Amino acid sequence: MILSALLTSVGINVALCVLFFILYCVLRNRPSYADFYIPRLVAEGKFREEDEFSMGKLLSSVKWVKRAWQPSEDELLANSGLDAVVFMRIFTFGLRVFRFAGIVGICILLPFNYMGNQLNIDFTDLPNKSLESFSISNVDDGSNRLWIHFAAVYIFTAVVCYLLYYEYDYIASKRIAYFYSSKPRPGQFTVLVRNVPATSGRSFSESVESFFSEYYPLPIFPTLWFVGQANLKGSLLVHVKSKKHPQQRFKRAGFMGLFGRKVDLLDHYEKKLEDVEGNVRTERDSISGKEVPAAFVSFKSRFSAAIVSHVQQGVKPTEWLTEPAPDPQDVYWPFFSASFIKRWFCNIAVIFACIFVTVLFLVPVLLVQGLTHLDQLEAWLPFLRGILNLKIVSQVITGYFPSLILEMFLSLVPPVMIVLSSIQGYIALSQIEKSACIKVLWFTIWNVFFANVLSGSALYRVDVFLEPKRIPELLAVAVPGQASFFIAYVVTSGWTKTFSSELVRLKRLFWSFLKGTLCWKSDEELEVPSNPYHSEIPRILFFSLLGITYFFLAPLILPFLLVYYCLGYVIYRNQLLNVYAPKFETGGKFWPVVHDATIFSLILMHVIAIGIFGLKKVPLASSLTIPLPILTLIFNSYCRRRFLPSFKGYPAECLINKDRFDQSDPTISSFYDELATAYRDPAMKSVRYSEARESSSSPLLYGADK
Amino acid sequence: MILSALLTSVGINVALCVLFFILYCVLRNRPSYADFYIPRLVAEGKFREEDEFSMGKLLSSVKWVKRAWQPSEDELLANSGLDAVVFMRIFTFGLRVFRFAGIVGICILLPFNYMGNQLNIDFTDLPNKSLESFSISNVDDGSNRLWIHFAAVYIFTAVVCYLLYYEYDYIASKRIAYFYSSKPRPGQFTVLVRNVPATSGRSFSESVESFFSEYYPLPIFPTLWFVGQANLKGSLLVHVKSKKHPQQRFKRAGFMGLFGRKVDLLDHYEKKLEDVEGNVRTERDSISGKEVPAAFVSFKSRFSAAIVSHVQQGVKPTEWLTEPAPDPQDVYWPFFSASFIKRWFCNIAVIFACIFVTVLFLVPVLLVQGLTHLDQLEAWLPFLRGILNLKIVSQVITGYFPSLILEMFLSLVPPVMIVLSSIQGYIALSQIEKSACIKVLWFTIWNVFFANVLSGSALYRVDVFLEPKRIPELLAVAVPGQASFFIAYVVTSGWTKTFSSELVRLKRLFWSFLKGTLCWKSDEELEVPSNPYHSEIPRILFFSLLGITYFFLAPLILPFLLVYYCLGYVIYRNQLLNVYAPKFETGGKFWPVVHDATIFSLILMHVIAIGIFGLKKVPLASSLTIPLPILTLIFNSYCRRRFLPSFKGYPAECLINKDRFDQSDPTISSFYDELATAYRDPAMKSVRYSEARESSSSPLLYGADK
Repeated sequence: MILSALLTSVGINVALCVLFFILYCVLRNRPSYADFYIPRLVAEGKFREEDEFSMGKLLSSVKWVKRAWQPSEDELLANSGLDAVVFMRIFTFGLRVFRFAGIVGICILLPFNYMGNQLNIDFTDLPNKSLESFSISNVDDGSNRLWIHFAAVYIFTAVVCYLLYYEYDYIASKRIAYFYSSKPRPGQFTVLVRNVPATSGRSFSESVESFFSEYYPLPIFPTLWFVGQANLKGSLLVHVKSKKHPQQRFKRAGFMGLFGRKVDLLDHYEKKLEDVEGNVRTERDSISGKEVPAAFVSFKSRFSAAIVSHVQQGVKPTEWLTEPAPDPQDVYWPFFSASFIKRWFCNIAVIFACIFVTVLFLVPVLLVQGLTHLDQLEAWLPFLRGILNLKIVSQVITGYFPSLILEMFLSLVPPVMIVLSSIQGYIALSQIEKSACIKVLWFTIWNVFFANVLSGSALYRVDVFLEPKRIPELLAVAVPGQASFFIAYVVTSGWTKTFSSELVRLKRLFWSFLKGTLCWKSDEELEVPSNPYHSEIPRILFFSLLGITYFFLAPLILPFLLVYYCLGYVIYRNQLLNVYAPKFETGGKFWPVVHDATIFSLILMHVIAIGIFGLKKVPLASSLTIPLPILTLIFNSYCRRRFLPSFKGYPAECLINKDRFDQSDPTISSFYDELATAYRDPAMKSVRYSEARESSSSPLLYGADK
Repeated sequence: MILSALLTSVGINVALCVLFFILYCVLRNRPSYADFYIPRLVAEGKFREEDEFSMGKLLSSVKWVKRAWQPSEDELLANSGLDAVVFMRIFTFGLRVFRFAGIVGICILLPFNYMGNQLNIDFTDLPNKSLESFSISNVDDGSNRLWIHFAAVYIFTAVVCYLLYYEYDYIASKRIAYFYSSKPRPGQFTVLVRNVPATSGRSFSESVESFFSEYYPLPIFPTLWFVGQANLKGSLLVHVKSKKHPQQRFKRAGFMGLFGRKVDLLDHYEKKLEDVEGNVRTERDSISGKEVPAAFVSFKSRFSAAIVSHVQQGVKPTEWLTEPAPDPQDVYWPFFSASFIKRWFCNIAVIFACIFVTVLFLVPVLLVQGLTHLDQLEAWLPFLRGILNLKIVSQVITGYFPSLILEMFLSLVPPVMIVLSSIQGYIALSQIEKSACIKVLWFTIWNVFFANVLSGSALYRVDVFLEPKRIPELLAVAVPGQASFFIAYVVTSGWTKTFSSELVRLKRLFWSFLKGTLCWKSDEELEVPSNPYHSEIPRILFFSLLGITYFFLAPLILPFLLVYYCLGYVIYRNQLLNVYAPKFETGGKFWPVVHDATIFSLILMHVIAIGIFGLKKVPLASSLTIPLPILTLIFNSYCRRRFLPSFKGYPAECLINKDRFDQSDPTISSFYDELATAYRDPAMKSVRYSEARESSSSPLLYGADK
């Protein structure tokens, strides 16, 4: 790719970004779009309706940038929980890393790369220069200038490791502080007991009761259990809101909610509910006598719950399995009663499914690669030659299309991974999301980074991973060549996608538009979404991987990344404050994923550096780089020991202190009362639709007819 | 190697074994050798001195075989603890596996191999036939007979997995039963607390006291700690026995203790002790004021101790580190007070040291390989040609010498690994031994199996491990060729070494003979040795690896292995009952090592099978073997989840039941009193050598002058 093609791509994307920005400013304060752009404020009743439209309002609505920027971290913490803060720390961390990398890369490495003569590019007009002339490929073989790159790799690794250590330490201490300041939550007091062994002449609930009252007689006071059947097929939660937002009760059914006749939502649902009430009653009656071998057991103190969940209970390690219970709204019921064998088997099956999905995905990746190599495409589809020879077409195709198509396929991956994780046997939505996050991350690294890099020239190279010795050399040949593709990827997938899908929520807007016009009904309820960590964190981490690996290869990528991190910082802050409501609270458990991914990126950079210095005929630098990945791994092993235990549970000191603090709290007794009914299988809740009118957004179930 | 060479080797070894057997029978009941052959009986006072020598006694002394065979497993358990039982289960397991393998291998596979014509060996006299004609190499390429081997691999894997599951289950239940039946031990009630943070104005012992009395106020009654300095340089324990065995007080100083003047041992030591008493006092006074940031904290119940050791205590995961304390006699003091950083650093350093040792060891292995390839040796050292051409010399050299030399070098490895493990930061001797056991095992597999197999034809092949794709093919070429070497190895290292070093304890006999004659003093004290698990378990497991991998390649090895396991079963039982006293009790924690090693052996067999079937031009069988290692790994992952937790600690159910049982035990109060003084740093015990005369074998310390 030449510089002008890159500029074309940047131009298109900047234009799109501006367009989306204006669209957002226009739509943001329109009441019909409040559900899209500030659903959280609406749900919290902080939104005032002002339907009239004026230019002054449009200008003033740009203020959201300031409002997103202003709140301090503590305000964000109070507003959206620790997970949101950790999420934003990824941006802060990225900004810190790439600020340093950008200064070193652009001010020191880039000039040295450009001064090299390896590629013998003798035309002098800058716009037509290949982007390769800014990369390490342009430095002369055996040149002493490569020692500057060598030093940069070492210094950069040291800086990143320092920042990683600092962040891990900071977040670990935040986690403890947040625990101390949080209100009592049912999950902290409760343990999930699974695989209760069957005893003849005793129901499971009796077994649980006798086991825990026998072995934990004194410290536990309200041992509450709920044992129920969770696998009610086709169960579905419908949130019905009423009264609170009367303006929402009637909605226009026409184009984008702007025109058309008003529909009374309550009438609409009332009819639906009458239909299904009977079905649910029938289905529930058929299972109400059954019991499952699992239970939630609540304790009077957090420390007791921690003890029970840490110590193996039964003699057989597959019976009386205990684990900390998730909070009630975080429970994923289908695996509540699954047996040890079933969960183990599901786990194994999901591993194979993941491998299968990853292999299957190579097909679209290869198609995309065909586009960046226009000559190949011309050879395959000769009739396109006429069009492809037009300069603007070829620039758009090579600069913009590949990453757009890749992005479309990639957007299918997070839902697939969520499905896979959800059948893996986790009991909590947060665990599912974290597991899916890790899956999506490795999927992205493999299918976007490696498949692009290695299939760029020849597909058979993928089997290089069966010959580890040749990996550094091969990566060194292939990775720098893909720099231009990844710069375009940052611009398309980073900039524009953040604006379009995150800020404007284009996909959702599009769907609701389709529904509104085609079906003449509007089904969307005010469902405050939660931040999809499993799709967002891998994306951000992938950009950080690109930045770290290309830091010394092609520093030109760094300014684009810095822009991405700045945009992301503002936009995601805005979304966290206005759109997303936390669905669960893991207490920062996503950070270890970020840490591990960054360590992996560093090691990948080192491996490429070893290969590059070898290729560039500076074997001494190549050998001297070998200790670097080893040192990084040692650093990582230290961090794992030093910080990771803090993210697995809370220490006894904190638990006991917090328990004592609670005892002096007058509200604790009412909390205990709530605890008694906190864990109810939604399938077992009473079904009377008339209740739904009284309480806002109470979960209500209906059994699908199938 | 041809059959007659193998028979020569077997002949030499059988002769040696018979010789050692007679030697043992002669020496066993001689009082001068009682310390060697029945030290445990001597220490327990069960040995009656009968000095006269007669032929009838010699014959009756063969009865030890029966006496070793007779005791039931429960008697062995009562006598030597669970670790000894688990150790003997390795033999039982091996006998079961190789009984099945032997029947299949000798009756089915061997005839098919011999009927093949691949090697075109047309001479008919059996003694001169190459051993290869009994191996899979002799089966014709593409022959359908290979499907019999294929079926054998599948069935054998299934049988081994079934036996593994059965044993794991059996030992896990034994472990719980042993826990229930055991007397209270201090380690069960005690927790080791390390990295106590320094608080200004408070000593470490005050910190520990206030921390535990603050957070565990009720359930803990006698919180006893001992905080002391352990790193007294050159500290040495001397066991002085007296009175109890007056016949041992005087000992002949001459040849093998049979001739020479009698020496009064007490006089001898009295003088020594007077010298050192002053030194110790001086050194101890200098450190007695210091405190170290570590302590043993004892609790009133096992469950409390388990809670404290399972739950992270302090906010910083590197402070207030708790772990179950080893029993007092099992404590390895040098790392008692080591900081988190120091132990972590030592750990990393030991990993590198292990890699270094492993690489360094390739040199002797290569030398040994030179001997099995006589033609190479002739080429290197032409002047030896005359001697080497003698048939008997060449047979001895190829059949017996290589494994003997290898064995000598290998005997250096366990002590080296013990040293490495001991600086790794473990607090218990049992942990050190287990860690060394794993190290020696992998060292043996790598340096005996892989280095022999791969360097057999060419050294550069070792780097095949950087190209995983070629591993099956390369192993398939190399492994069958080394069958004869490993058969000889089983005979030499298995049969003869078990007799010589284990039964006759030749090395120790030799050293004491050297000392007795050269220095005119006899220093050996009645020190009842403990079973060196770290050197014995890897040896046995290595034989099982050989049996499993060669099962379908060269079934001729199986009868030799069966003989080894039978011999080993009798001899080790005899040693456990008469020689070794348990130094510690891990409760069967060595079994997971055995399990993992067997799984590894199976996978190795599968990889070789994949390669062999490919080489033999039955690609379908090769492809159909691929699921086998995957299934084995899945089986292993199930076993890890199903059984491994039982070996990491005891479940709450057992701990609480056992605690309750103790409360009704009248001896428990005296046990609590003992607990108060159980953990004393030996460096801090009072030093008065006069005490030593009163109590038998009390540890006494003296500081070396250096």
